[in-house]
Amino acid sequence: MNYEKLFSKTAGHMRPSEIRRLLRWATQKDIISFGGGIPDPKNIPKEDLAEITKRVILEYGEEALIYGPTRGNNILLEEVIKFMGKNGIKVKGVEELVILTGSQQGLDLWARVLLNPGDIVFVEAPTYLAALNAFAPYQPNIIGIPLDDNGMKTDILEEKIKENIRRKRKIKFIYTIPTCQNPSGYSMSLDRRKHLMEIASKYDLLILEDDPYSYFLYEKVETTPLKAMDNEDRVVFMSTFSKMIAPGLRVGWMAGNEKIIEKIILAKEVADLCTSPLSQYIAAEALKTGLLEKHLPRIREIYREKRDVMMSSLETYMPNGSKWVKPVGGMFIFAWAPEGVDTELIAQKAIEKYKVAYVPGRSFYPDKSVRNAMRLNFTYPSKEQIVEGVRRLSQVIKEEMR
Amino acid sequence: MNYEKLFSKTAGHMRPSEIRRLLRWATQKDIISFGGGIPDPKNIPKEDLAEITKRVILEYGEEALIYGPTRGNNILLEEVIKFMGKNGIKVKGVEELVILTGSQQGLDLWARVLLNPGDIVFVEAPTYLAALNAFAPYQPNIIGIPLDDNGMKTDILEEKIKENIRRKRKIKFIYTIPTCQNPSGYSMSLDRRKHLMEIASKYDLLILEDDPYSYFLYEKVETTPLKAMDNEDRVVFMSTFSKMIAPGLRVGWMAGNEKIIEKIILAKEVADLCTSPLSQYIAAEALKTGLLEKHLPRIREIYREKRDVMMSSLETYMPNGSKWVKPVGGMFIFAWAPEGVDTELIAQKAIEKYKVAYVPGRSFYPDKSVRNAMRLNFTYPSKEQIVEGVRRLSQVIKEEMR
Repeated sequence: MNYEKLFSKTAGHMRPSEIRRLLRWATQKDIISFGGGIPDPKNIPKEDLAEITKRVILEYGEEALIYGPTRGNNILLEEVIKFMGKNGIKVKGVEELVILTGSQQGLDLWARVLLNPGDIVFVEAPTYLAALNAFAPYQPNIIGIPLDDNGMKTDILEEKIKENIRRKRKIKFIYTIPTCQNPSGYSMSLDRRKHLMEIASKYDLLILEDDPYSYFLYEKVETTPLKAMDNEDRVVFMSTFSKMIAPGLRVGWMAGNEKIIEKIILAKEVADLCTSPLSQYIAAEALKTGLLEKHLPRIREIYREKRDVMMSSLETYMPNGSKWVKPVGGMFIFAWAPEGVDTELIAQKAIEKYKVAYVPGRSFYPDKSVRNAMRLNFTYPSKEQIVEGVRRLSQVIKEEMR
Repeated sequence: MNYEKLFSKTAGHMRPSEIRRLLRWATQKDIISFGGGIPDPKNIPKEDLAEITKRVILEYGEEALIYGPTRGNNILLEEVIKFMGKNGIKVKGVEELVILTGSQQGLDLWARVLLNPGDIVFVEAPTYLAALNAFAPYQPNIIGIPLDDNGMKTDILEEKIKENIRRKRKIKFIYTIPTCQNPSGYSMSLDRRKHLMEIASKYDLLILEDDPYSYFLYEKVETTPLKAMDNEDRVVFMSTFSKMIAPGLRVGWMAGNEKIIEKIILAKEVADLCTSPLSQYIAAEALKTGLLEKHLPRIREIYREKRDVMMSSLETYMPNGSKWVKPVGGMFIFAWAPEGVDTELIAQKAIEKYKVAYVPGRSFYPDKSVRNAMRLNFTYPSKEQIVEGVRRLSQVIKEEMR
């Protein structure tokens, strides 16, 4: 059969993820991987999770092992409401909430429910590449707004908004990761947050706030979620337990105006009926029993140390002309090789010859304009691997410069 | 904000599922639910699954609790290949396989990868309503082919194919549940299976074979999968562990030509990155340890008895002019109230006044033409509930007939 002629137009706009391609290397023993945003597997609370899970199946098996409501199981919905409350986010009730099969599903359903070809979407540049890939099949016009160490440059955002209104283009939403931005490592200042909210109000715009990392802070920075500053119901908030507990559960959530959440639920119904109730019960119990509260500070310290090891390794090994951001939190250091080095071109050699993997920075820019950047994850590798990996990385770059 | 004006065209074509709406009632204690296709919660092997899960987390936690490959974890991919092999299905290797977050995800990704507006899709009429809902957002032209007790009437299928070729319409695929068809309870005879494969070959068509129920057979019927008869690589096979082990795991799979599977994986990458590795390891261990082999014959006997209880209750209580199919397997009895009774109109009264829930038959027909049918699930309720529920159901119908 000629399958090619059967594929849909949508399929033609799907892009493979650079991260997923590199993750294949992550599990190979001799490769040091700075690729994915993977928690330290040695420090996932396995024993606690094993006990919780066994108990959940024995006690709640009749609900946890069958289909659940598409919105999510009540036990987790209620825990998430409490959890967000501690962070200043109030919702009217479960009607403003949906549990997701990882926050990736949120990005996908969001795009499906909102995007028509040609719609304008604003994102930070660089931004989370899996968000770009989730939006791409719907063929929006994605506009990147530059960042500095106070986060998204909201004055430039406003200019671009005005320009697009003038050109009568349909603006659909602003996608932002205000706290510990992925991949840049910056956080949005309070002034910028306020400005962003003013702009959204002035031009009547919707904001998708993605917040996977605000529980992994290594510096004192602003963390008030935009959703907590939102008096006009124009922010939809999204987070995940992937980084906080374990990505293997595939549990995230989205909170916002019930009209949008209802549409997301409608889309989720055909996407997978419901998120694994077993995973939901495990996450709920991790919250209820205080496991998360106990686990987070411990893992934060481990990650802070790993970040510092990576910082000093970069200092030691990287050639002149390189630079990098000291991330205030999260899981990544965003770095630039000296001008002229194409990190995408040398990625394959880095893996094959030097046995070190990273994500080329280009994929994080909607216009793919930056060629010498790279995203380096410091949570998955051990400290020894970080030192050795950065050493190898610097060798690849130096070899390329010659 | 005016959210309505922001929603995409795709969102406008999403339909809420009748089953999901009714499932909300399933867990209310005083309602007897014949709604969803839910395994008997009293007979899910909780103790075994609790043990397996605890062991999986302790032994394989470093893989089971982090992200896995989008295609699926090797441990499960290999078990699924063996499992399909016992049923006569051979694949070249893991490249022809993808693990799904429930088979619902398969339907969704399949639609996304294949359908453009106006494309022709052939299905059985009636067919699985969640498949219709998964296809709907992509606005295909869905054509229902009637069934008899030998399954899909393939002569009518061929006529309709010819007609659509004559009208130069783009035929994308045939969707079929050949064994223990949902909702009808019929199975396709060997002759019809052969005829279907001949037709597919003659007109160069793709088939999606959905097989969730062939391990729940109560009569001796043909079960050779179409995929096992497929010499031309035109059948894509789909199944799930939801009915065999537990729907709460959300694990299904799809097998077929690697070009299609690759596209499905590309779509899955943005949909949810990967199916919960924890769930995958649990399913793999349920296969490896023989739990499934031990569990299936036991549960089959329980379901057979429940089917028979429902059959005899229908015999006892239903008014003259009603009819129903004796299902050869699966989880449902498809029944018709006497002509003139609209099962969709009385569904709400059935729930509120008589405390019994079912799925109106209309939703299972692509053209919504049949108004007096209903799908009754017999695996979830207890035997006592089945008797009492059918009694109540007959009362609603009799009241409506007066």
